[in-house]
Amino acid sequence: MTNEIKIQWLGDMLFNADSLGGSLKIDAPENAEIESKGLRPKALMLTSLAGCTGMDIVSLLKKMRAEVENIEINVSGELTDEHPRFYNKVHVQYCFYGKEFKKDKIEKAIKLSADQYCGVMEMFRQFAEITLETKYIEK
Amino acid sequence: MTNEIKIQWLGDMLFNADSLGGSLKIDAPENAEIESKGLRPKALMLTSLAGCTGMDIVSLLKKMRAEVENIEINVSGELTDEHPRFYNKVHVQYCFYGKEFKKDKIEKAIKLSADQYCGVMEMFRQFAEITLETKYIEK
Repeated sequence: MTNEIKIQWLGDMLFNADSLGGSLKIDAPENAEIESKGLRPKALMLTSLAGCTGMDIVSLLKKMRAEVENIEINVSGELTDEHPRFYNKVHVQYCFYGKEFKKDKIEKAIKLSADQYCGVMEMFRQFAEITLETKYIEK
Repeated sequence: MTNEIKIQWLGDMLFNADSLGGSLKIDAPENAEIESKGLRPKALMLTSLAGCTGMDIVSLLKKMRAEVENIEINVSGELTDEHPRFYNKVHVQYCFYGKEFKKDKIEKAIKLSADQYCGVMEMFRQFAEITLETKYIEK
């Protein structure tokens, strides 16, 4: 299977990006002269990771009958000081909202996604040290 | 430097993602029952790559006084058949639109981005074979 995307320059550092499912704007941080009109390209890597593992978790919790009320995933990535700057440390925090959590199943779902299913996590493992955290928020 | 993003579950496979510069929707491909309302997480990796190298190119061509009228970057990534599915082959096609191209400078800019500046390309090199292509379109 092949994925394809296209970006087109719109002037300054602004690009429009098209891929399956829609389009988005990418831009550099704002500076004194130019306002930023889009997302940062490097942060998109972290969004990709969160989305990939997030979909695994939703689908696994459904199969395991361990659904929760809400899920939030926070990802932080530390960039090296030297160029080319890449993420060398990445922390993924899974937050589950609800009550009477089936914690053993939830932990199992996270482990399955991290170790076996999530292709983006597999790619990140090649350059970053990844740490995982689970948080339960009773509602 | 640390980048942070957050995704929040909206039901089915749909997530809202927030990061510096804005938000976007992530979703799985549509199926018989559910329409897709967002971008695919894995394709965002390719968008990240295109945006990172694209910004390098814009900034380098400006410094080198080798500006072009327009730039388009197409990225295709081949996923492995086995899970976890990762990109093992990635092709980046740089398309330059304009006339009287300073091709030596443009080639140099691409080489600088690919080899030294683009952190996302550096991360991709850890798991994928990357090929680059340059195309000039006279207007």
